[in-house]
Amino acid sequence: MAELKYEIVENLGTLGENARGWSKEVNLISWNEKEPKYDIRDWAPDHSRMGKGVTLTADELAALKDLLAGIDLDSFE
Amino acid sequence: MAELKYEIVENLGTLGENARGWSKEVNLISWNEKEPKYDIRDWAPDHSRMGKGVTLTADELAALKDLLAGIDLDSFE
Repeated sequence: MAELKYEIVENLGTLGENARGWSKEVNLISWNEKEPKYDIRDWAPDHSRMGKGVTLTADELAALKDLLAGIDLDSFE
Repeated sequence: MAELKYEIVENLGTLGENARGWSKEVNLISWNEKEPKYDIRDWAPDHSRMGKGVTLTADELAALKDLLAGIDLDSFE
C-alpha cells in the first residue's frame, strides 16, 4: 500500500468534535513534502487517523473567508 | 450499489476552479432527505460528479467563519 506522507505545519483551529471524539480541524498541511495547503477535515484523537476532507489553496481560503464574512448565518437556521 | 440521494438546497458560492474545470463550492445540502448541512467540495461541471469534501453543521460553519475572520492570511504566504 502506498504511503501518504504529510506534515501538519500549523494548526489553525478546531471547529468542533463529534460523538466519536473526532475533531474537525483547520490545518496548514504539507502533503508528500510539497508546498503546504490549507485543509479542513476530521481527525481521530492524537491524529492517529484522518477522515475525508477538503484541501484549499491560499486563494480559495481567502475566497472562503470573504464568502463567510458576507453571509448572515442566522438566516439559514 | 447503494444510492446516495442529495439535494442542493442553496449554493452559497464558489471558491475557485481547478485545471480540469471542477469548481470548489460551498453549498447547503440535504443528504438522504435529512436536515441540510453545509458542505465544501469539488464538483464537476453541471454537478454531474462530486469530489471529496467536508460537511459542517451550522455551529461548525460559524466557528469556521470566526476562525477565518481572526486570521491574517497574508502572514502564511
